[in-house]
Amino acid sequence: MIVKHLLDAKREGQELAADDIRALIAGYVKGEVPDYQMAAFAMGVCCRGMTTAETFALTDAMRLSGRCLSWESCTQPTADKHSTGGVGDKLSMIIQPLAAACGLAVPSLTGRGLGHTGGTADKLESIPGYNASLSLDDFQQVVAKCGVSMTVQTPEICPADKKLYALRDVTGTVASIPLIVASILSKKLAEGAQTIVFDVKCGRGAFMRTREDAVALATALVSGAKAAGRKSAALVTRMDYPLGWKVGNALEIAESIDVLKGREVPVVTELSVEFAAQMVSLAMNTTLDAARTECRARLADGSAYARFAEMVRLQGGDLAAFSALPAAKVREVKAPSDGFIADIDALVVADAALRLGAGRTCLTDVIDPLAGVELCVQPGAAVKCGDVLARLHADTRADCLDEASKIVSTAFSIASNCPEKQPLILERIV
Amino acid sequence: MIVKHLLDAKREGQELAADDIRALIAGYVKGEVPDYQMAAFAMGVCCRGMTTAETFALTDAMRLSGRCLSWESCTQPTADKHSTGGVGDKLSMIIQPLAAACGLAVPSLTGRGLGHTGGTADKLESIPGYNASLSLDDFQQVVAKCGVSMTVQTPEICPADKKLYALRDVTGTVASIPLIVASILSKKLAEGAQTIVFDVKCGRGAFMRTREDAVALATALVSGAKAAGRKSAALVTRMDYPLGWKVGNALEIAESIDVLKGREVPVVTELSVEFAAQMVSLAMNTTLDAARTECRARLADGSAYARFAEMVRLQGGDLAAFSALPAAKVREVKAPSDGFIADIDALVVADAALRLGAGRTCLTDVIDPLAGVELCVQPGAAVKCGDVLARLHADTRADCLDEASKIVSTAFSIASNCPEKQPLILERIV
Repeated sequence: MIVKHLLDAKREGQELAADDIRALIAGYVKGEVPDYQMAAFAMGVCCRGMTTAETFALTDAMRLSGRCLSWESCTQPTADKHSTGGVGDKLSMIIQPLAAACGLAVPSLTGRGLGHTGGTADKLESIPGYNASLSLDDFQQVVAKCGVSMTVQTPEICPADKKLYALRDVTGTVASIPLIVASILSKKLAEGAQTIVFDVKCGRGAFMRTREDAVALATALVSGAKAAGRKSAALVTRMDYPLGWKVGNALEIAESIDVLKGREVPVVTELSVEFAAQMVSLAMNTTLDAARTECRARLADGSAYARFAEMVRLQGGDLAAFSALPAAKVREVKAPSDGFIADIDALVVADAALRLGAGRTCLTDVIDPLAGVELCVQPGAAVKCGDVLARLHADTRADCLDEASKIVSTAFSIASNCPEKQPLILERIV
Repeated sequence: MIVKHLLDAKREGQELAADDIRALIAGYVKGEVPDYQMAAFAMGVCCRGMTTAETFALTDAMRLSGRCLSWESCTQPTADKHSTGGVGDKLSMIIQPLAAACGLAVPSLTGRGLGHTGGTADKLESIPGYNASLSLDDFQQVVAKCGVSMTVQTPEICPADKKLYALRDVTGTVASIPLIVASILSKKLAEGAQTIVFDVKCGRGAFMRTREDAVALATALVSGAKAAGRKSAALVTRMDYPLGWKVGNALEIAESIDVLKGREVPVVTELSVEFAAQMVSLAMNTTLDAARTECRARLADGSAYARFAEMVRLQGGDLAAFSALPAAKVREVKAPSDGFIADIDALVVADAALRLGAGRTCLTDVIDPLAGVELCVQPGAAVKCGDVLARLHADTRADCLDEASKIVSTAFSIASNCPEKQPLILERIV
């Protein structure tokens, strides 16, 4: 393989041979292919796209760049869920233990956040003592013991992805469906679960802004996973409003625990059951309706929460200490008029949460686990002037409460008529 | 300017602001913008193109990355000709002194070759003593003294182009008309001539293979030069057969001297007069016909040759020593049958010349000035079996004469009917 010829071919929109793509990625990881050639490749892919065969070859090459986990000794069917991320998206903390309670083994490698709020690992670390940096061997042992583990992906998994993603981030080459598919899927394939369900968020608070893009990504992820011999499905879900009621780190863990303990939390419980049921249905070859019934039963009987509590304990976390976390300073945002909540802008709420200390703007920022925004209403709610719309929580950055409350107040739109209810799930790709 | 935002915009096909393009190039030359970002930019330009305004901004930024020559103290109108290069293309050696003999000042910065035969500078250096590596100050003095100088572009001219071209060469980003225009034009604009005429070669022996691409490049070059306030025109000329009769370094100088001394050399004299007349007509505001008459008179009266001889003398060259160069070993290639020459494949002849030592495959290769191929016929000629079609010359690589003569014999096609005469000039862009 001569890299410049491969780049010529990509520039001209020709399909590259799988072996050439594998050699390119292998050379890049070894440092034989320099960043500038890889950057030209990434931009070529952004502009010219990739065929299904090319995308699969790229995904596979990235998967094989590091360690690939095996779950052969595991007696349960393995499954995992991946989300493209959104504001208030705490579903993993609920779905993974819930699916484990339904009889699946759920190995779930996750990430830290660089954005408005923390990633799943950051949220879990708001539980005092929780170790979200397990070795892969410890990760496998926790899964073996309680059916579920959630920890940060280690550098042994897909080093090619880590290197390429860092390059894409600074070369304007993030927005490419084949590159996004290869990045997401290579890690999930290396993780080794036999069933992979994707939550592709769509809307102004998501990476995919349009339904068309979200469906294209979801379709590519599912077909890529199937091409690799996995069972797979995707739901495209709305991400225009924050997901559920709480945005932050400890706040989202508290909301997750509520759902896991069987409380019906509007939006959050519904979506959690849908995703867990999708995993169970695929992994156990049952109908979706039977799987939904099973999931609701496992929330109601406390077994989902028990799995979560056991995982937390095995990873060093202390739920009693979590319950005893000090209270943050709170500021209320009130309705300026009577009417119906027509809109809650997810990005505006996220921006306020970031200012309050819930997220990072650079990798060295320290997250305040207590910071965030609690919504007291959802779109469609009738409100009177002076009703509390949201409560802002802050501790280390309590000085930002004034500024953040002004921001949050702009997130709400109040209309005189009750807005039409929007579906949570926009598309199902199976 | 944040480079990644600029790359995002280019990826999405948006027009970039001139100031952002200038900042990008300035940052690249300073080393603040890394190669990987520039490689992504170049691939983005290859795939998404550039508007006229963007191309002009890129050209101007590259021009301003180094020294820009001024010819204000020069009393004659200044002009230069640029060729995209072809097999046997010795026109510069004839046109530049001829235009000077017609009353123009012709500052001509040229290049070395990395290809089948040497560049203009390599050809001139086959004249013993010729210094093709003048300082820019000496270059300006030679132009002041005799109206013409030909020397290699120094690193002070357009350093951005040198750096970007090296990167494009290894990132599959050479084939982009806006990038080619910026590369060619920035150097010609920095050189400072007020009239710039382009020879855009088209055909299998040229960089531009199709007439469509060649016309697009020629049009973009002329409009770019005009946008920069210069007078400009371009001829798109055929490069399917070698240009003229001789391919090599000393061989092409000898053919150029023949034309400069007033001998009518088919193809070569005609094209030389056309280009020089185009320069004279634009620079002096005369008709093309009057300029052609003037050019033919300057060839006939010896003044064109006198300019050439004076330039060579001022740059240290010894034409008497050139005439006394030792003879190379010669091998003849003969016609295998009666008929008409239907084709002489320029690339095949060039390949043979390269093997005989006339060109370089890497920058450290040493060119043999005596090596090359002399054609004894042109397309359309009637030949008898056994007639000499070509003479191969070699000195340091005389051991390659057998192999090269086999190659050259495949360059000729002999047909039973006389082929239709093809025009030399395909398009005129003014």
